[in-house]
Amino acid sequence: MAHVHRISIALSCAAVLVVLSASGGFAASTEGLSPSVATVAERLRTEALAGTESYDVVRSLTFEVGPRSAGSAGDARAVAWATEKLKALGFKNVHTEPVEVPHWERGRNAGMILSPWPQPVVLTALGGSTASPAGGIEAEVVGVATLDDLKKLDPAQAKGKIVFVSNHMERKSDGSGYGAAVAVRGVGASEAAKRGAVGLLIRSVGTDSNRLPHTGAMRIIEGEPTVPAAALSAPDSDLLEAELASGKPVRFRLELETKRFPNAQSANVIGEIPGLDAGTAKEEFILLGAHLDSWDLGTGAIDDGAGCGIVIETARRIGQLPPAERPKRTIRVVLFANEEFGLSGGRAYAQAHEAELPRHFASAEADFGAGHVVRIKTRIAPSALPEFAKIAEIAKPLGVAFSDVNNSGGGADISTLASANVPVISFDQDGTEYFDLHHSANDTIDKIDPKDLDQVVAAWTGVIYAVAAGALELRPAPALTERE
Amino acid sequence: MAHVHRISIALSCAAVLVVLSASGGFAASTEGLSPSVATVAERLRTEALAGTESYDVVRSLTFEVGPRSAGSAGDARAVAWATEKLKALGFKNVHTEPVEVPHWERGRNAGMILSPWPQPVVLTALGGSTASPAGGIEAEVVGVATLDDLKKLDPAQAKGKIVFVSNHMERKSDGSGYGAAVAVRGVGASEAAKRGAVGLLIRSVGTDSNRLPHTGAMRIIEGEPTVPAAALSAPDSDLLEAELASGKPVRFRLELETKRFPNAQSANVIGEIPGLDAGTAKEEFILLGAHLDSWDLGTGAIDDGAGCGIVIETARRIGQLPPAERPKRTIRVVLFANEEFGLSGGRAYAQAHEAELPRHFASAEADFGAGHVVRIKTRIAPSALPEFAKIAEIAKPLGVAFSDVNNSGGGADISTLASANVPVISFDQDGTEYFDLHHSANDTIDKIDPKDLDQVVAAWTGVIYAVAAGALELRPAPALTERE
Repeated sequence: MAHVHRISIALSCAAVLVVLSASGGFAASTEGLSPSVATVAERLRTEALAGTESYDVVRSLTFEVGPRSAGSAGDARAVAWATEKLKALGFKNVHTEPVEVPHWERGRNAGMILSPWPQPVVLTALGGSTASPAGGIEAEVVGVATLDDLKKLDPAQAKGKIVFVSNHMERKSDGSGYGAAVAVRGVGASEAAKRGAVGLLIRSVGTDSNRLPHTGAMRIIEGEPTVPAAALSAPDSDLLEAELASGKPVRFRLELETKRFPNAQSANVIGEIPGLDAGTAKEEFILLGAHLDSWDLGTGAIDDGAGCGIVIETARRIGQLPPAERPKRTIRVVLFANEEFGLSGGRAYAQAHEAELPRHFASAEADFGAGHVVRIKTRIAPSALPEFAKIAEIAKPLGVAFSDVNNSGGGADISTLASANVPVISFDQDGTEYFDLHHSANDTIDKIDPKDLDQVVAAWTGVIYAVAAGALELRPAPALTERE
Repeated sequence: MAHVHRISIALSCAAVLVVLSASGGFAASTEGLSPSVATVAERLRTEALAGTESYDVVRSLTFEVGPRSAGSAGDARAVAWATEKLKALGFKNVHTEPVEVPHWERGRNAGMILSPWPQPVVLTALGGSTASPAGGIEAEVVGVATLDDLKKLDPAQAKGKIVFVSNHMERKSDGSGYGAAVAVRGVGASEAAKRGAVGLLIRSVGTDSNRLPHTGAMRIIEGEPTVPAAALSAPDSDLLEAELASGKPVRFRLELETKRFPNAQSANVIGEIPGLDAGTAKEEFILLGAHLDSWDLGTGAIDDGAGCGIVIETARRIGQLPPAERPKRTIRVVLFANEEFGLSGGRAYAQAHEAELPRHFASAEADFGAGHVVRIKTRIAPSALPEFAKIAEIAKPLGVAFSDVNNSGGGADISTLASANVPVISFDQDGTEYFDLHHSANDTIDKIDPKDLDQVVAAWTGVIYAVAAGALELRPAPALTERE
């Protein structure tokens, strides 16, 4: 059913496009743009909607590389793959920039409810979790509903026990249920440890009901107490809740054979579509970012193979324009190392390119799966907003709205550029199903509808081209507020 | 979305019921039935649709017992659970009957594509598979599309290799895609072994795209060659297909730490709702069957916890009728041992009750999940069909059709009664999503909508009551044809 749903959205976008083109209503709405820029931007959009190679990029990355968590053998293969791929697709200045990354491996993870009703359960370690002692931890479980309840838990109740936080994540199309649900993944283990607990279990931070747990980074602070921590799949969390509801003592065995290795070397992979100003002192950059690493459980199709496919294909299509239509600004694609486990790539980029950041004209990141774009948001000079709204009109026939709240963070990796007030353009995607898959073994390419990716690339190519080729100054962006 | 879909069906059934009751159209359609029997049957149906305890039975079985494959500790707990549950629900003559069952355990199962693109894959042993040698089998993979292609495979192509059969199962509401797809699970390993292969991989026999493989019995014939055999999840099967499509040699490591133990003792669990003729020479039985065992990966909610809930609740509700409305025939609930791995329970029942089978007035089995009933079918004396069609009208307001093809097998367990020509009544359920879950870790209670189970019990109680209390002779059933 999900598949049908996605197709119908893609079709309805196409239908809207046809209607607006026929009525001539579209040209009027972008009249503030230079006619030549608008014409090329609209053509890029229309051509992309008819079919792109973004899905092929994701397919290649997920099949030929697969899982690629920071520091793993897959990570190194991904860097080699990306370098080759960018070269093969005609990018210029393709190179890697070194990034030191943490290296943690999951190993074997197992859990068992021992009593009152013996049940094997499906769980996975939180990213960075310490290992359990050999043979596992056996302890009674104390259940709490939320992180707040954990923070209020009397240490006498927690001491020697495994704390279980059963909080459910809410499904929302913009993914806004994630923020509320994910906090316990970050700090739950240290909060449990502070109270004398010996382990932490959480309900997976996800919206599906598959027997597939969701991993994700937990906060590790050198010298602070922590405990082995794991996420149960949704049905297994239901099971543990039911055992606790029986009122009988619930005993649990948790075995996490995780390993922390010395930091490893990875790399940001960078390629460019040079603008007309390339090689001159006037050269400016539009940074299109996605992250190359993934968690280890799936093949990283939606997180963030899709993002890699979107930014690579957007730049490639702009790069294929005839010389007379080339934008003056350079499109720089950055495939960041290790977004998942500490933003190492984003930080390394910001540091290595500090002197160059004033010449970063704008930035955009794709890291929210493969759903269609529903909305464009920005963080740009407020004075540029009225004119930018006209650029955003390019994506309107795709069913894409424009929001002028102008406080977009843009994405984790490019948030590291915030200190230099680099402008941000965000293409918000439909995330209704994103957290069904995110950080789980189910993050595989079969969950992506190529038509959705085409719509995303249609929105990106049209708008990014207009920004890269146009006269509108977007700098300086206002400071990033807490709101996003 | 699936959840919403199920609710809407339940609501539309309720709506139909209201409309027909209001128009008085319903009474006319069952006029061939004795008015008193029809009245009680319709009341049973209406009351069940308003809410039953069938879901609670499934919940109790799946949470308090969980996985219960033949011969396992869970199997023994399930027998104890069922005995207690039937007694607690007021059944009479509650007892167990011994069944010898095979005992096979899965152990650790792992797979890895070694080259050209290293990828860990998710797989599970087929039920009964032999173990791989310690450290696993490493071999090149030869891919074929179907079982027929495997049967045509040149031994020179298969020798020393792992055969992979990539055939996809088709999704159909009546589950009829299963028959075509499942054959390779049964005989694939022996066909591969005959050709000198060292292992078998199949695409899971299922219709989902989750990273959860589906197990199920393979045919084991003493003395015949076989090889370790496993099913890949759908996305992993896609992955292996893509690697083979690269044209490069694909090497695979398969580790199956399965174990076959000596046969174990299990039991059919039986309880009765005695009819008015109970204890006399005239006593006749309506056998309502489901199977108590499950595969080990899930908690056996749809296969066949749902069936247990349906037959237990159907009998219990008939047992609560006031004395004046009690049917003359006895409702006998049989929760069969080991359906999954060789039909031991069904065979043992047929053998132990051979002399009594002529007094088995009818039989019905629930073993197709928790979807709503769409159709009633039979295998009864052909002369009884026109009158039986009137009994089937009782379920019509629930959206249930009647098919008079009269060749129903009824279910695996009760197929063992076919030699005695015991009549069969089948309540065909919607199986659109059944094979998404069947034999996988995803077979858990959260996939069941209680409203669907209520509709099923509504159909069963009305029709089974009418059969148990009515005058229509259903015997002898015609021989079971190959058609079903």
